[in-house]
Parts: sequence; C-alpha cells; structure tokens
Amino acid sequence: MNVSFERVVIAGVGLIGGSFAAALRQAAVARHLVGVGRSRASLDEALALGLIDEVQTDWAAALKGADLVLLAMPVGQMATVMAAMAPHLEAQTLVTDAGSTKADVIDAIYTHLGVHIARFVPAHPIAGAEKSGPAAASATLFQDRKVVLTPLPENAPDAIDRVRAAWVACGAQMFQMSPQEHDRVFAAVSHLPHLLAFGLVHDLAARANAEQLFKYAASGFRDFTRIAGSHPEMWRDICVANRQALLAELDAYLAQLAWLRALLLQGDGQELEKLFSEASAARNKWANSQ
Amino acid sequence: MNVSFERVVIAGVGLIGGSFAAALRQAAVARHLVGVGRSRASLDEALALGLIDEVQTDWAAALKGADLVLLAMPVGQMATVMAAMAPHLEAQTLVTDAGSTKADVIDAIYTHLGVHIARFVPAHPIAGAEKSGPAAASATLFQDRKVVLTPLPENAPDAIDRVRAAWVACGAQMFQMSPQEHDRVFAAVSHLPHLLAFGLVHDLAARANAEQLFKYAASGFRDFTRIAGSHPEMWRDICVANRQALLAELDAYLAQLAWLRALLLQGDGQELEKLFSEASAARNKWANSQ
Repeated sequence: MNVSFERVVIAGVGLIGGSFAAALRQAAVARHLVGVGRSRASLDEALALGLIDEVQTDWAAALKGADLVLLAMPVGQMATVMAAMAPHLEAQTLVTDAGSTKADVIDAIYTHLGVHIARFVPAHPIAGAEKSGPAAASATLFQDRKVVLTPLPENAPDAIDRVRAAWVACGAQMFQMSPQEHDRVFAAVSHLPHLLAFGLVHDLAARANAEQLFKYAASGFRDFTRIAGSHPEMWRDICVANRQALLAELDAYLAQLAWLRALLLQGDGQELEKLFSEASAARNKWANSQ
Repeated sequence: MNVSFERVVIAGVGLIGGSFAAALRQAAVARHLVGVGRSRASLDEALALGLIDEVQTDWAAALKGADLVLLAMPVGQMATVMAAMAPHLEAQTLVTDAGSTKADVIDAIYTHLGVHIARFVPAHPIAGAEKSGPAAASATLFQDRKVVLTPLPENAPDAIDRVRAAWVACGAQMFQMSPQEHDRVFAAVSHLPHLLAFGLVHDLAARANAEQLFKYAASGFRDFTRIAGSHPEMWRDICVANRQALLAELDAYLAQLAWLRALLLQGDGQELEKLFSEASAARNKWANSQ
C-alpha cells in the first residue's frame, strides 16, 4: 500500500520518535514533520538535526491538519499526553504509538481518547534503545526490525492499513498480536532480562570492592550488562506498567535459580551440565537462525 | 624479559590451548609444539591447522625434554591430568594452566605435583570462550587481554618470571592476585553472569511457547544470552569447582531480586528509577572506560 502524509506530529523526538521521523522523510512519505515534547532542548536538537521541520509546544497548533501522530515517550507519560491531545484531535488524524507495553497504553486510550478509538492503532517497534535522545536517531533504526501491531476491535480497517503502511515505509517487518499476549511475551524476552541486568550491575556497583570487580569484568560481562545501560525512566515505566506479567516471569526465573542453587549446593555436575547443554543448544540454534 | 622454549607441551588443544600455541609460534618463542589431549580428533585438527607440530598420546614421550607445559582443559580434568603427568615430569619443566578457577587447581597441584610445586605457576587468561575447539583458536586471542597469575609461596622466582614472560609473549597484560581473591572476583563478574544466562535460556526454552518467545527476542536478548552459548562441560566444572564463592554471589543476587520483586509488587516507580539510574550510570561509566 502506498501511503503519504502531509503533516506528521512526533510526540517525543528521542531515539524512537526521531528515527521514525527520519525514516518517513527518507521514504519520502511525510511532507511536513512537527515535533512536540516536554524537553525544549530535545526539540531544538531534533530541529537542528533536520529530523523535524517545526517545533510546537501547543497541542492545538500541533494537531491542526495532522494526518498522523506518533506517541514516542516513556509509557508512564502516555495517559497525560493523550488527555492533553484529546480536545484538539481532528476526526481524520491517525494515531499510533511506540510503547514497549500495550495493555496500559490501551487502557489510557479507552480512558482519554474513547471517541477517537477507531483511528488509534497501537504499535511496538522492537528496536534497540540503550542509547537515547535525538542525536541517536537514525533513518535505518527500523530497517528489517519487527514492529508488533496490537489493533483494537474498534479500529477502522483503513486506519490499521495506513498505520501499518507508515511502519512499513520505515522498513519494518510487521507482526500482529493481542495486547495481553504481547505483554506476556515481552515480559519474558525483554523486560525480565533488563530487570536482571540492572539488578546485577546495581548489586556489584554498591560493593566496597566495586572498582576491582569492574576491572576484571570482560567481554561476557560487557554483553550481559549492555541492556543495564538503558534509559532508566523508560524502563521504570515499562516495569511498572507491565508488572503483573513481569512478576510472573520473575517468579518463574526465581524458581529456576532455586533449582540451580540446589544443584550447586549438592555439587551435582551431571545435572548442571545437562541444564547448560540444553541452554547452550537452544541459544545457539536461535542465534544462528537470526 | 626475553624468553624462548625448545619444546612446549599443550595439554588440551581447544580455543585456549590452540591460541596459546599459535601466539607463542607467532612470537617466535617456541621451536617445537606438542599437543596432548583426550580427543584424538581435536589433536589431529590442531596438527592439520598447524597449531602444533606433533601429537602425543603418551605422557612419558610428550614430557621428555619439555621446557613448558600448558594445561588447558576444563578444570574438572586437571587433577587426573596432573596425576598422569607426575611420574614423567622432568625437574626443569615449567608448568602453567589456563583454568578459570584457581583454588581447586592449586589443591590438585599440592595433591599430585607436590614435588614439582616450585615450577607450577597457576594462571587464568581472561579471554572469551563461547566458541570452542582448535578451529576457533587465534594467535591474537590474548592480545591486550588480562592474564591473572596466582603464584604460590613455593614458586621459584625464575619460574614465575618465565611463565609471565610466556604469557607476555602472547600479548597479554599481566595481573597478580591470591587464588582466593581471584575466585571471589570471578564468581561475581564471570561465573554468576554465566549461571544467570544459562538459567534464563533454559527456563524459556522449556516453555510450550518457546518458539514464539525466541521469535520476538531481539538484540538485547542476543547480547544478554551470548554467554549461555558457552561450553557446557567447561562451565559445569567451573561452577562445581567454585561453588562456594558462586553460592555467596548467587545469594547476594537473590537478595537483590527479592528487593526488586518488592518494588514491582508495590509499583514503586521512584525506587525502581533510582536503582536503574545507579546501575545505568555505573555500567556506562565502566563500558566507556574500557
């Protein structure tokens, strides 16, 4: 489907919002890009970098004549932003978001944008975000990356098609899930690993011999903790929003660790090797298939 | 210190042993390299790759006239190998090892090589090992990587100097610690992360929806779990050998996870953000200093 937009509003011009703007511009499907956000410094930087054409601090002015809005702020701010947008949203304007959790964003849509629900199509781009801010934005961030749509029963079919086409124009591969399934899957493969990495680094950094420990940490530790360098506020919001699914995953993992702890206590090398072999085979099979 | 060896015996010609052989040869400090090991296939492969000059299955023949022996097998095999070597080790022969744990290797030295203890200088090269086998060996594996020596009170000063010089010839940066300190530090920054990564992948791979979970796992998961692709037997041996220090680290981490779990249950975004911010700052400060 060919798609083009006259006026696209990017709310939150960091890594994700800035990259969406850059990708739409590179695909030549957005004529005029407007940035909105709480940080004037980020907006000015995005303007200077050419990611957007115009900075707006007023929702009425920003939304006037808009075809498409992307909400790309930490999920904890989504409800407040939707409430601010609601009085000014025109009937034709499509909305999508880039939130890493979906049930909470959709709750906020029902609460604040109920009348506009036919045209708000929730999305989650699966794109790395351990760097943040407009300077980290790239027109190729979504190239060949997965974007999961979690359409609502109330969404108009043409709205879904056009939002999908906007993400496809960014180079994304499109997938579709229910919001509940989405939140469970990403609790397991994304939110829990982030929590575990933050926790390990926090534990070590608080030690009296932290400097010595970090001195001998090597490439395995570097990769294992890369996601502990992620944006604290973004991950706070994700963990709070998806805490139900995340707690279920954490508890499953704690049960696994209790089992590993018992094997260590017993010095049960046979069972440890079996577990490591299964994990190693599964991980390498997955990594080689990517 | 300039060093050169007429005959070097490599026991275990996998990633580490093969790379040690290749590095010594490239530095032109080893004239003749002999491979010993339990896998005839690996020995033949190492010979075909030119990592070693000679394959030996008999310790008496291998050790005759040897200047230097490297033990580079999983730490669980060290004691058996030392017992087999003991009757044939000549008085002048230096020995070092590449075990990731030191207290257990040193126990085995006292048990099996007591009479030779002046010339066995334990070492641990901090070099990545998620690939294994002679084909993964490289003359540059130890270039600018840390090697930790844990010399024994009984070591002869010239033995320490010459073993250090062998590792320096491989390009390594040399450090020195007590065996106990070594095992505690690496339990924290290496052994625990491996255990955690193996555990996470094992937990997910056993799920009914494992295929779906892996499908949506992205680059953060890839890096977090890279070390779960490591050699199962090697990591079994490390975990069993260092289980005392590893259990202490696991328990500290479980306390951290219990705290994170409480914050999630309470939905305490403020404390979560504080913890994530401290972890993120510590991780990025460390990564940028490397």
